[in-house]
Amino acid sequence: MSRECSLAEAGKLLEQAQSVILCSHVNPDGDTLGSTLALGHLLRALGKKVLLTVDDDIPMNLKFIPGIDGYQRLQAGQIYPADVLVILDSSSADRAGNVLQLVKAGHVLNLDHHKTNTRFAEYLYLNAQAAATAEIIYDLAGEMHWQLDKTTAYCIFTGLYTDTGSFKYSNTTAKTLRAAAHLLEFGVDPSFISDNLELKSRETVTMLSKVLNTLTFTHQGAIAYLEISNAVYDKNVDTDSFISFPRYIEGVEVAILFKEIEPGFTRVSMRAKNIDVSKIAFSFGGGGHQKAAGCGLKADLATTKKQILAALETALS
Amino acid sequence: MSRECSLAEAGKLLEQAQSVILCSHVNPDGDTLGSTLALGHLLRALGKKVLLTVDDDIPMNLKFIPGIDGYQRLQAGQIYPADVLVILDSSSADRAGNVLQLVKAGHVLNLDHHKTNTRFAEYLYLNAQAAATAEIIYDLAGEMHWQLDKTTAYCIFTGLYTDTGSFKYSNTTAKTLRAAAHLLEFGVDPSFISDNLELKSRETVTMLSKVLNTLTFTHQGAIAYLEISNAVYDKNVDTDSFISFPRYIEGVEVAILFKEIEPGFTRVSMRAKNIDVSKIAFSFGGGGHQKAAGCGLKADLATTKKQILAALETALS
Repeated sequence: MSRECSLAEAGKLLEQAQSVILCSHVNPDGDTLGSTLALGHLLRALGKKVLLTVDDDIPMNLKFIPGIDGYQRLQAGQIYPADVLVILDSSSADRAGNVLQLVKAGHVLNLDHHKTNTRFAEYLYLNAQAAATAEIIYDLAGEMHWQLDKTTAYCIFTGLYTDTGSFKYSNTTAKTLRAAAHLLEFGVDPSFISDNLELKSRETVTMLSKVLNTLTFTHQGAIAYLEISNAVYDKNVDTDSFISFPRYIEGVEVAILFKEIEPGFTRVSMRAKNIDVSKIAFSFGGGGHQKAAGCGLKADLATTKKQILAALETALS
Repeated sequence: MSRECSLAEAGKLLEQAQSVILCSHVNPDGDTLGSTLALGHLLRALGKKVLLTVDDDIPMNLKFIPGIDGYQRLQAGQIYPADVLVILDSSSADRAGNVLQLVKAGHVLNLDHHKTNTRFAEYLYLNAQAAATAEIIYDLAGEMHWQLDKTTAYCIFTGLYTDTGSFKYSNTTAKTLRAAAHLLEFGVDPSFISDNLELKSRETVTMLSKVLNTLTFTHQGAIAYLEISNAVYDKNVDTDSFISFPRYIEGVEVAILFKEIEPGFTRVSMRAKNIDVSKIAFSFGGGGHQKAAGCGLKADLATTKKQILAALETALS
């Protein structure tokens, strides 16, 4: 169980340290990397020795974040000493990868905005109202009177942008937008961030082209789905955004993406306007939220489709 | 030539009027409709008689804006009297449609943010620094101490969101984001606006599926293009966003969309990262900006492709 601390206490812990290791979560996104890099820049400006780590590869479209080349992966068998280890944007220990095993730290501090946080670290600053962990770093800099500059502003803006879907998700608050406004005054160009974040691999767009050909409507157009057969499936191709195509078609109430990730095992992602798809996901052993849920079935694509569509048609009737 | 006026002068002109006709531009978008509706709500709250008009159909994905059902189209042959006619978000008279012919107004006021404004109206308030005409309405309400509420906040936010691509284009300023922050405090949910604005027709997604199948790379992946043959082309299907698919592929320097809109006439849209595509568009009789330009060629798809690709390959070499 963590000791929950205030922003000022978290800031003091960092100011008292000489050496700090900052850790982003595995499967890294623009918020974990942007918030970690921003904190790294701020602490270096205070004269701290800073090591940045993430136990994973950095996606191609995030390589533009200032300072990203400074990340290093920790090597098993080595021990990395630090006065403070900070784990950012991670709600549980497994999200930190190998770092809790390999770092010998005086203190461990977790900075996070997920209300599902499992309180795994020694100290926790949690703000579930923050749209992004980057918003927490913005607040921390303000609280501690650490000076922002163009570099930190780019890092923080990238985190805010990522976790709010460019300020369009409902977690966007007036405070988030005022922070973003302040960051623009340091010279951030949002279109530079956007042009980078939207970059996709050639394989993703080629896969999208194949998958869109499977677009099917049922239930008088209230259900629209896409399918990725095991023959087409490629674990190296990011297909997370594909469900937005059926989702945003006029008249569609439920959008589904079926993905047979191994022969006889099919993942199902669902998005709904009004019905509660988390109940359906739960009945198949999955979970999620009312409007966005998913599950995995030990069944091939055709069987999974049949079962899920039957459950949805009942729910829609 | 217009008489340029201040925001306070524009506001006073409106406060002195009893009846006002507000006109959005043809081919309406979220900014012209959102700014017009916001001004309509504000003036009605002041007791003015307000008529809202646009000489065009309202797109399906904009029908959610509060008050949108109040729009009416003016009928040729009739004359519509008003103390003041306000034309919003239109840089030239033709953008207003039939309104300048059919309205007999004491004064004509143009509120706009396009620096290309042709100064066609009697009075003009132009702010080319504003990200959207909706930002001008926000400023006008502040200047005149007109009270915003949730309804006007939704209308203005929709305009800001539209013209900044959800706060990601480089026209987004700190002032834009602070206005957006203030609007959220009236209870605006950005995800409601986003879910509506992103709605596409079934035909658009089906067309995208066909068109993505044509994705082709040349010049070692530096050029990526899509094509819409005349057989596939449908003037009722919105394909404006399709160019973003080749544009945001890793390594692509120039993205092109070829669209044979009639046999022997092909429209070309180009997007570039670093080279100046407006020069190439200009050499074929078109125009645009450095990174986004277009032209139309009196040639079939195959001939157009050959000519444009040759010009681009020269520019890239």
